[in-house]
Amino acid sequence: MSLSAQEINYVKEHVRVVPDFPKKGIQFVDITTTLKNAKAFGITLDFMKDALKDKNIDLIVGLESRGFIYGAALSAAMNIGFVPIRKPGKLPSDVVSVDYELEYGTDRIEMHKDAIKPGQNIMIVDDLLATGGTADAAAKLIKKVGGNITGAVFFVELSSLGGRKKLEADGINVVSMLQYDLD
Amino acid sequence: MSLSAQEINYVKEHVRVVPDFPKKGIQFVDITTTLKNAKAFGITLDFMKDALKDKNIDLIVGLESRGFIYGAALSAAMNIGFVPIRKPGKLPSDVVSVDYELEYGTDRIEMHKDAIKPGQNIMIVDDLLATGGTADAAAKLIKKVGGNITGAVFFVELSSLGGRKKLEADGINVVSMLQYDLD
Repeated sequence: MSLSAQEINYVKEHVRVVPDFPKKGIQFVDITTTLKNAKAFGITLDFMKDALKDKNIDLIVGLESRGFIYGAALSAAMNIGFVPIRKPGKLPSDVVSVDYELEYGTDRIEMHKDAIKPGQNIMIVDDLLATGGTADAAAKLIKKVGGNITGAVFFVELSSLGGRKKLEADGINVVSMLQYDLD
Repeated sequence: MSLSAQEINYVKEHVRVVPDFPKKGIQFVDITTTLKNAKAFGITLDFMKDALKDKNIDLIVGLESRGFIYGAALSAAMNIGFVPIRKPGKLPSDVVSVDYELEYGTDRIEMHKDAIKPGQNIMIVDDLLATGGTADAAAKLIKKVGGNITGAVFFVELSSLGGRKKLEADGINVVSMLQYDLD
């Protein structure tokens, strides 16, 4: 099932671009306006389902926090287990962690050590692909425990920030539904 | 559709209780082990769907972060829009906010002002009902913008912490799938 241009446009019309958030000069792509509209949210998930189908996925990994929204909804719709990747100190059992660089400083994400079994096929899901730093760190986490990364799917891609190139350089197949070039 | 005792037990067997997290003496109910198991996650969502059906719900509100997992999956499955309630500074457009008390200090949650229209019927969804502080604050946020709270549904209820009593005192109907009395 492929989406029509009309369906894609319907979703895009429900995205809200907010100027000067979180700081002056940044245009923030607000996806909450597409979530409260059941039709727009449904079309978005249909797009993602299409990207996941026939790929023999064992688990969907969602990145805190907005990746939980798309990842968990997809998991439920496709009857595939869901694994959260979280900020430090949130997961109660033994974790693996990866540090990654931000514009200023570093950040860390964690996943339960026993969340993925070696050889399982994993799809990474998040709302937004920007520089690709978080998704790339997530891929490293998944590889640490022996997972096989089938690809990464995003609702929105900020094309000018180079995230796709970064992930593809690591051999990760990238799919995004809406592309923005905001600079 | 009601769940069988066997199905409820299947889910409960997949919950992991982790001792001494986040600090010594606390037993933490880890729900991630039920998410990576598609059958357990599916049964959980079936329980929640049952709690929502025939209630004429307009929107599902999920609380950051784990409430996003259940809330968004339910929204998608039931073709109902989803609204995230978030920690401060995360939502880009105009927000309403509520402060609430923690054991030590206070915390704040926010929601977009235009997320809910006056008179819409709202169901609050979260993973865990403990003292009820966050859910009660969420209810205040929803009322601030004129929403009508139909009820609150939780995966896990820590019965000894009084959350149900607190919410019911505010007229909120509470449903939980699994109850724990860990003290």
